[in-house]
Amino acid sequence: MGFGVLKVSGPRMEILEIGVLRMEKMKDPAIKLKHIFEETIKIIDTHCPDELAIEAPFFGKNVQSMLKLGRAQGVAIAAALSRGLPISEYSPRKIKLSVTGSGNSSKEQVAAMLQQLFSIANLPKFLDATDALAVALCHHFQNGNGNSISKKAGGWKSFLNENPGRLAENAVMKKRK
Amino acid sequence: MGFGVLKVSGPRMEILEIGVLRMEKMKDPAIKLKHIFEETIKIIDTHCPDELAIEAPFFGKNVQSMLKLGRAQGVAIAAALSRGLPISEYSPRKIKLSVTGSGNSSKEQVAAMLQQLFSIANLPKFLDATDALAVALCHHFQNGNGNSISKKAGGWKSFLNENPGRLAENAVMKKRK
Repeated sequence: MGFGVLKVSGPRMEILEIGVLRMEKMKDPAIKLKHIFEETIKIIDTHCPDELAIEAPFFGKNVQSMLKLGRAQGVAIAAALSRGLPISEYSPRKIKLSVTGSGNSSKEQVAAMLQQLFSIANLPKFLDATDALAVALCHHFQNGNGNSISKKAGGWKSFLNENPGRLAENAVMKKRK
Repeated sequence: MGFGVLKVSGPRMEILEIGVLRMEKMKDPAIKLKHIFEETIKIIDTHCPDELAIEAPFFGKNVQSMLKLGRAQGVAIAAALSRGLPISEYSPRKIKLSVTGSGNSSKEQVAAMLQQLFSIANLPKFLDATDALAVALCHHFQNGNGNSISKKAGGWKSFLNENPGRLAENAVMKKRK
């Protein structure tokens, strides 16, 4: 499982941590899930992020691999929930599109673009790490307004709550027309 | 999500709690996952079970529904992991087979068998509840030796550790032959 922690202050973006959880040597699926749960909590407690974004694949090799992926994501989501973080999700295509400009980019192209953008001297060995950073960057580019799986439903009502001035403006503009 | 808590003392079996988490009115998937996480922890903290067993479907309508199911299970698994419970999994066929004697039973047949076995006066309205109890019962019938997703790998070495006398017996038998 790859992860990337991105800090954004105004126009500045900074990678706080990037890496992978390696679990090839763990044969027991539950030990893997436990590892993901504990390490995700560690990463959250280290950097205190405001939000968590994950990839939501819409295709998979088979239903069994999707069940396993879902369980792994569920455990990471539970770690974020236990720390009160809102969770967003993005399709792989959306992530690639927002990072490289093409929804069909390879993992290597995504990594190369991130390397350039963040002036990374040495790319991590595992592309899962840059893939994860791409999710964080995509989330930032969407202003945190992706296919949120945890934020309020959004829509007109919440938009007005968040932008109380806009109703009057629109109303005025309508009147002028 | 259905759940059933089974207490076993020697030959006696007792249902401690059985029910469903209803989430139809929750539109946000993350709120649902949060609900599953919190309620599973509540159920665990109420009854302090020794083990958790879940169903592991091998077929699904589509990969998207399997991803969602996996996430929901992952969140429940994380709740159990956070309380140190070992986790086992069983296929739907195995569960039906061990409860009714047929791997192709309907949910209604499973419920009817459980009603008889536990002398349940009024069956719960939702068959997810009896389905969950069936998982617990199946786990008990397997002596907790199902397709464990969290217990030690098992095998010869752990068998010997758990049954130190058996090595000598077998060794003796071999010699006699």
